[in-house]
Amino acid sequence: MPISGLYLVTDRGLCGTRPLEEVVRAALDGGATCVQLREKDVTTRFFLEEAGRLKKLLSDYGVPLIINDRLDVALTVEADGVHVGQDDMPYEAARRLMGPKAIIGLSVESWEDVERARDMDVDYLGVSPIFETPTKTDTKGSWGLEGLARIRAYTRLPLVAIGGLNASNAEAAVLAGADSIAVVSAICAAPDPLKASRDLAGIIGSALAKRSA
Amino acid sequence: MPISGLYLVTDRGLCGTRPLEEVVRAALDGGATCVQLREKDVTTRFFLEEAGRLKKLLSDYGVPLIINDRLDVALTVEADGVHVGQDDMPYEAARRLMGPKAIIGLSVESWEDVERARDMDVDYLGVSPIFETPTKTDTKGSWGLEGLARIRAYTRLPLVAIGGLNASNAEAAVLAGADSIAVVSAICAAPDPLKASRDLAGIIGSALAKRSA
Repeated sequence: MPISGLYLVTDRGLCGTRPLEEVVRAALDGGATCVQLREKDVTTRFFLEEAGRLKKLLSDYGVPLIINDRLDVALTVEADGVHVGQDDMPYEAARRLMGPKAIIGLSVESWEDVERARDMDVDYLGVSPIFETPTKTDTKGSWGLEGLARIRAYTRLPLVAIGGLNASNAEAAVLAGADSIAVVSAICAAPDPLKASRDLAGIIGSALAKRSA
Repeated sequence: MPISGLYLVTDRGLCGTRPLEEVVRAALDGGATCVQLREKDVTTRFFLEEAGRLKKLLSDYGVPLIINDRLDVALTVEADGVHVGQDDMPYEAARRLMGPKAIIGLSVESWEDVERARDMDVDYLGVSPIFETPTKTDTKGSWGLEGLARIRAYTRLPLVAIGGLNASNAEAAVLAGADSIAVVSAICAAPDPLKASRDLAGIIGSALAKRSA
């Protein structure tokens, strides 16, 4: 299925005292259509166990589990896909290991990245970041809505917009060309992740309908 | 081929200003029979590129390349094997992904680890640490030569001893039961890694001959 709608990228730190699974479940109940598990600085064993728990939870909802960067984790838990950045495994190597059915997303942080990705059969481009964000600081500047629109005009690949997106700008990002809106803090750090997800999913759904009307 | 002899575990930090490849080449010229690439806190891309370079270098010497923990890296560069610790991927999952021909080593840090490993077809046990060492601090105490001898009496698996080993105690470790002596700083931090490796390989070779005589 093509990537579309509300895409949650996890951040355990932002969940505070709430278990990650509880926040993910709230996001799913609120209408998230894709979840990416992102972990840094944990052991492989911890990452695997967490991924295994999420895999089980997500399959109850029929929502794909995407693993950030770590193909060893994705292969072991039989996740639906991986998301790779420009410092992660090259796309071709990731496809070779994951096989033809896996969802593979690729972050684009520069126009050169976008051009190189044009002829790849990636499942989506992660346009990162749209706006500056404290949850990811190793980027090369932000695309803005103009950059997003420029990529939309250039490629037919599904676009997942990420970086500084929330209920106040999700509609604009969809209208600029995003098929999916990825959020981290707008759900993980929300006082009420269920409500936050429901609101976002509603805004994104309406905007997608408006765009295709 | 069974693991035996001088086993280098890399530590880029300890190599100082010398490129890792230069130190590894010196170790190979000095008689190392196995090299494990261990990296933490680097990007997957960096790890892959470095592993690819070492793979090429080691194949010229006919020496196996073992990747620490990261099966995604090992699979992509077609390394000869992986080394997993108790916080890394479980052995069975690693075997499933790596296939029957891969070398898989498993660290044992407690007697329970040794008992659990008894019926696994791991290629070697990494007995870790023999002595306290500043290059690895997340362990559960040290085995000592007595602990090594106790494991030797318990299992037929090849034993790679690691932790605080150098030219002054390598012979004793072999006589206590190690088939292979793994070193980090004794080569990576040596003023002359070629000489250090040659000395160590000589000591280990003589001790293995003495033991089997």
